[in-house]
Amino acid sequence: MKPLVSVIMGSTSDLPIMEKALNLLNDMEIPFEVLALSAHRTPAQVEEFARGAKARGVKVIIAAAGMAAHLPGVIAAMTPLPVIGVPIKSTIEGMDALLAIVQMPPGIPVATVGINAALNAAILATQMLALADEAVAAKVEAYKADLAGKIVKANEDLAKLEYKFKTN
Amino acid sequence: MKPLVSVIMGSTSDLPIMEKALNLLNDMEIPFEVLALSAHRTPAQVEEFARGAKARGVKVIIAAAGMAAHLPGVIAAMTPLPVIGVPIKSTIEGMDALLAIVQMPPGIPVATVGINAALNAAILATQMLALADEAVAAKVEAYKADLAGKIVKANEDLAKLEYKFKTN
Amino acid sequence: MKPLVSVIMGSTSDLPIMEKALNLLNDMEIPFEVLALSAHRTPAQVEEFARGAKARGVKVIIAAAGMAAHLPGVIAAMTPLPVIGVPIKSTIEGMDALLAIVQMPPGIPVATVGINAALNAAILATQMLALADEAVAAKVEAYKADLAGKIVKANEDLAKLEYKFKTN
Amino acid sequence: MKPLVSVIMGSTSDLPIMEKALNLLNDMEIPFEVLALSAHRTPAQVEEFARGAKARGVKVIIAAAGMAAHLPGVIAAMTPLPVIGVPIKSTIEGMDALLAIVQMPPGIPVATVGINAALNAAILATQMLALADEAVAAKVEAYKADLAGKIVKANEDLAKLEYKFKTN
Amino acid sequence: MKPLVSVIMGSTSDLPIMEKALNLLNDMEIPFEVLALSAHRTPAQVEEFARGAKARGVKVIIAAAGMAAHLPGVIAAMTPLPVIGVPIKSTIEGMDALLAIVQMPPGIPVATVGINAALNAAILATQMLALADEAVAAKVEAYKADLAGKIVKANEDLAKLEYKFKTN
Amino acid sequence: MKPLVSVIMGSTSDLPIMEKALNLLNDMEIPFEVLALSAHRTPAQVEEFARGAKARGVKVIIAAAGMAAHLPGVIAAMTPLPVIGVPIKSTIEGMDALLAIVQMPPGIPVATVGINAALNAAILATQMLALADEAVAAKVEAYKADLAGKIVKANEDLAKLEYKFKTN
Amino acid sequence: MKPLVSVIMGSTSDLPIMEKALNLLNDMEIPFEVLALSAHRTPAQVEEFARGAKARGVKVIIAAAGMAAHLPGVIAAMTPLPVIGVPIKSTIEGMDALLAIVQMPPGIPVATVGINAALNAAILATQMLALADEAVAAKVEAYKADLAGKIVKANEDLAKLEYKFKTN
Amino acid sequence: MKPLVSVIMGSTSDLPIMEKALNLLNDMEIPFEVLALSAHRTPAQVEEFARGAKARGVKVIIAAAGMAAHLPGVIAAMTPLPVIGVPIKSTIEGMDALLAIVQMPPGIPVATVGINAALNAAILATQMLALADEAVAAKVEAYKADLAGKIVKANEDLAKLEYKFKTN
Repeated sequence: MKPLVSVIMGSTSDLPIMEKALNLLNDMEIPFEVLALSAHRTPAQVEEFARGAKARGVKVIIAAAGMAAHLPGVIAAMTPLPVIGVPIKSTIEGMDALLAIVQMPPGIPVATVGINAALNAAILATQMLALADEAVAAKVEAYKADLAGKIVKANEDLAKLEYKFKTN
Repeated sequence: MKPLVSVIMGSTSDLPIMEKALNLLNDMEIPFEVLALSAHRTPAQVEEFARGAKARGVKVIIAAAGMAAHLPGVIAAMTPLPVIGVPIKSTIEGMDALLAIVQMPPGIPVATVGINAALNAAILATQMLALADEAVAAKVEAYKADLAGKIVKANEDLAKLEYKFKTN
Repeated sequence: MKPLVSVIMGSTSDLPIMEKALNLLNDMEIPFEVLALSAHRTPAQVEEFARGAKARGVKVIIAAAGMAAHLPGVIAAMTPLPVIGVPIKSTIEGMDALLAIVQMPPGIPVATVGINAALNAAILATQMLALADEAVAAKVEAYKADLAGKIVKANEDLAKLEYKFKTN
Repeated sequence: MKPLVSVIMGSTSDLPIMEKALNLLNDMEIPFEVLALSAHRTPAQVEEFARGAKARGVKVIIAAAGMAAHLPGVIAAMTPLPVIGVPIKSTIEGMDALLAIVQMPPGIPVATVGINAALNAAILATQMLALADEAVAAKVEAYKADLAGKIVKANEDLAKLEYKFKTN
Repeated sequence: MKPLVSVIMGSTSDLPIMEKALNLLNDMEIPFEVLALSAHRTPAQVEEFARGAKARGVKVIIAAAGMAAHLPGVIAAMTPLPVIGVPIKSTIEGMDALLAIVQMPPGIPVATVGINAALNAAILATQMLALADEAVAAKVEAYKADLAGKIVKANEDLAKLEYKFKTN
Repeated sequence: MKPLVSVIMGSTSDLPIMEKALNLLNDMEIPFEVLALSAHRTPAQVEEFARGAKARGVKVIIAAAGMAAHLPGVIAAMTPLPVIGVPIKSTIEGMDALLAIVQMPPGIPVATVGINAALNAAILATQMLALADEAVAAKVEAYKADLAGKIVKANEDLAKLEYKFKTN
Repeated sequence: MKPLVSVIMGSTSDLPIMEKALNLLNDMEIPFEVLALSAHRTPAQVEEFARGAKARGVKVIIAAAGMAAHLPGVIAAMTPLPVIGVPIKSTIEGMDALLAIVQMPPGIPVATVGINAALNAAILATQMLALADEAVAAKVEAYKADLAGKIVKANEDLAKLEYKFKTN
Repeated sequence: MKPLVSVIMGSTSDLPIMEKALNLLNDMEIPFEVLALSAHRTPAQVEEFARGAKARGVKVIIAAAGMAAHLPGVIAAMTPLPVIGVPIKSTIEGMDALLAIVQMPPGIPVATVGINAALNAAILATQMLALADEAVAAKVEAYKADLAGKIVKANEDLAKLEYKFKTN
């Protein structure tokens, strides 16, 4: 089974953040791979990965990075595949990572999600895969439909709040 | 007893912040309701709520949200009632929520209070209700008059500080 | 005819921004007054104004200020009326004014609108007045209904764009 | 010919920024539509658009918005399609729009590009379409290959610089 | 013994920060008073304090405040005495307090020190008093001369660090 | 006539900003000197100036600087006199200069005024001089009393605005 | 004559900023080359350049980039030579470029200078070259000694200012 | 054995951050010294150090400072040696220190590394020393080659992650 999504991170210290992405892909039954790569420490491997990903059958790349977060952009420069960037918060509230990922120059976009938003990166990846795969599309629609559930539970909790002048 | 104020939040995780608003409304004896709604997870319910609120007798809506905080603005787009927005701090010190609430486009204001300022949202709601209700107006004036009390207590504490060259 | 809304600004240099508020109030046929007051240059007049506004029949106060924008908060401290604050951009993109207005301490809210958002301040004022005046409420609803008009015009313009692969 | 990409903007004032996206889609021979919609002024139309887009054959949505930029997120809440958000700079250097688009809550991603980065939004859209269409994939690869051309020209210009100690 | 310096804070929660100022004044044997005042909760007392301070013999006022920190500026508006403002960090890293204190309009300066920099506020107060009092001036010079001492101690500690290639 | 105030700037390019300070000092009849000094280009002269200022009769130093604005702090390190810092805007809205001046370490305060706030620096200097000079004190009080004048003029202008529903 | 310094920029649009660096190197008689390279458009050429620079005799690399400025960091990852990064201002006041250059991960430093500070980048390069070349060292010392000259001229200009109470 | 690198810090409280620099220099067998100096508390010693460093054989200076971090710039003003600045985070996420170090005026560069990036400062110092010392150059190349090792270990860890749909 070939991976359709590559999840790339700079070190295992990003794993507690990124495992939400891995879990979502697993739950969605999307074959994926997880790799550590560094734009700065292993540039040759990054290039090998980025230039070979499409030929290996990968459809979407998720790349997480912190600080001067070059990894998503560097990968995007070397592949025609869509690259999703996840800014990891480690300094100045993650603003450095966000700007270093999202403010790409004309011609090489990175599809940026929020700071530490690994789950959203994985959902976005499935939305892209769904463009070519009706089975995935059905899962995305089911997932979206389920989102309301958390709100239902919240309302049940709020209904239990006891205040004299609370009327619902 | 119909609610005059609707307090809306995105999840029960906002409750520790928002309960200061609930307590103030309760103390002021303003009938209120508390609901969980999400601009993104339950857009249909948000619309149903927003379009129906005025007809149900609601006068003011308080909506709390964090991150890319769309809830107050989305509600404001679908009701003629004044909407008070409370930016909830969850990332980058709450600046994302503040900007996403206060920087509304021309035509659809949200009355924004400070980051996590649930108490102020409730006071502002009572000030609005007071425009049409002398009993509430009297309570607002009494509340304002009481604010000085905390300062009196603080001065008593400061007077007890012992320094050789302190003269009060 | 007594003013229902007081529009306060620190100097006539704020007038080009604030006249959008004046025009809206005029169009809505809301009696209003316009005054220059400075929290720092005329503190005594600010106090006289703020303490007397309610007795004079004023219902809502709109206060605009830039830089270390104290005026809305200082007025809010001395009146039970709702105060709407308009941060005026003059330095650092208006962020100083926004923060100095919105981040009020517990007990004294200022209903803050966006940077230079004078129009929204006036609409918010009418929404508050509408709580006690059905005629104003009707105007607010009509105003909101009209907002879609600008979008209709925009779509007509966009429909005229000529591109070979444009399909609408 | 049905549109594969919907390009949504809040007003025609965004057109000078967004036409780079339209030109790219046209050059790539991707059928597209251009619509004006406002999360705040025309919420009903936004919902109608978002809920119907997939059934109409649209594959990717590009949504541009400024200030408290809710449009991309609101659309994303009501469609399973991937939504690309373009923050438009109008105030505080576009930081409000960037944060209001990228910092989406868990479950509803928006694929965010840089401030005013309309071109990158269109390229990203084609990269997504390429996942299901080899002809588009070929165009994306050709486009990427052409990017180096601008650098070749720049080096020719730099080579002409005359300095005594310049050696290339 | 009349106070020469008034130290004003909004609540006793600022005391842990401000006691560095009190200790310095005490050590310098400068008679001082400590008061709690709030620009928003006790505006009348603020005015009474500010208008009366000079006549009571006060020479310099130190005012600490957080968030939308109006207290120093409001006092400065009602006294000819120099006012030193101390921004207290409570939200967004204290940037709101800093901007709300330092960005005063033309005509009413506040001598602003760093975020939470109570000690520096007290030193600055003694430097001002020293302009009219040679005894205080001598203490300021002695204090400044002592500052180097901490560095001497630091060098002794650093000299003890053991590294093979460390040469001092 | 010996100067009581030294106004220091890094280059004559700061003069258009700083001349408001010079004019105020002249109008107040305060003897002053104007010097160009650079913490980085002429460190020896800065030291000579700072160490000798008090002996020459200078009472207060105003130092203006932009970017990584070290000049006020470096001077403050070498004199017991109070130093007033004026952050000059040249990059990133002057925020670099503001932070580099105001965030001084414990022990060496700089009395910071707003970005480009040369006039306020001069007023603050006169307020300090007034502590030891009743004639200057009288001028400060007169200046403060005059501040209200600008507001009177503004109200006259506002009174002339013609709106149908304007009532003052 | 082999180049000792490589000056790299992303496009000729950076030339008006970067020519201050070229002029300084020319004046210092340091052999240099000027190249256009893009981390994103020409990654293969960047690698070829970076991996080959030392063998070609280059000693120091100056790399300028704007927005999500990856170029200096990407080069630094592929060469043992010191890399000086110049953040170019194009969006959000250059803060994105500054953070994307300076906040490099552990192991791969970029010697960052200020926003648009091309001149300082060139001076820093000469300071590095001076470590191995006494002739260059002498030029650096002469350059530093000359810096005071601009201040002398500024003081002559300031001396001509005419104010009644100006005493120097 | 004379020190080639001087590591300067403002107090021993910076030691936990700076010891990564000391360890790297020690591991690289670069003779170094560690000193505490303060631009504000010990300006005379800073000058003595800076003016004498080159004559003592020092080649590169690393200076760490927080808040209004003047130390690196002040040293740079008084030596022809390259100065590496390390912004230490103590307030507002270290942004004040970063800006106060990097935004130096034309003529006096500081080679700035990331916030708290002491390790990178030491690596940069060795890269500079390597320009004149082949033995150090060899160590730098070996160090760079080793950087990939951490990534290998990370990939081994990631390979052990167990997910049903993980394929690597």
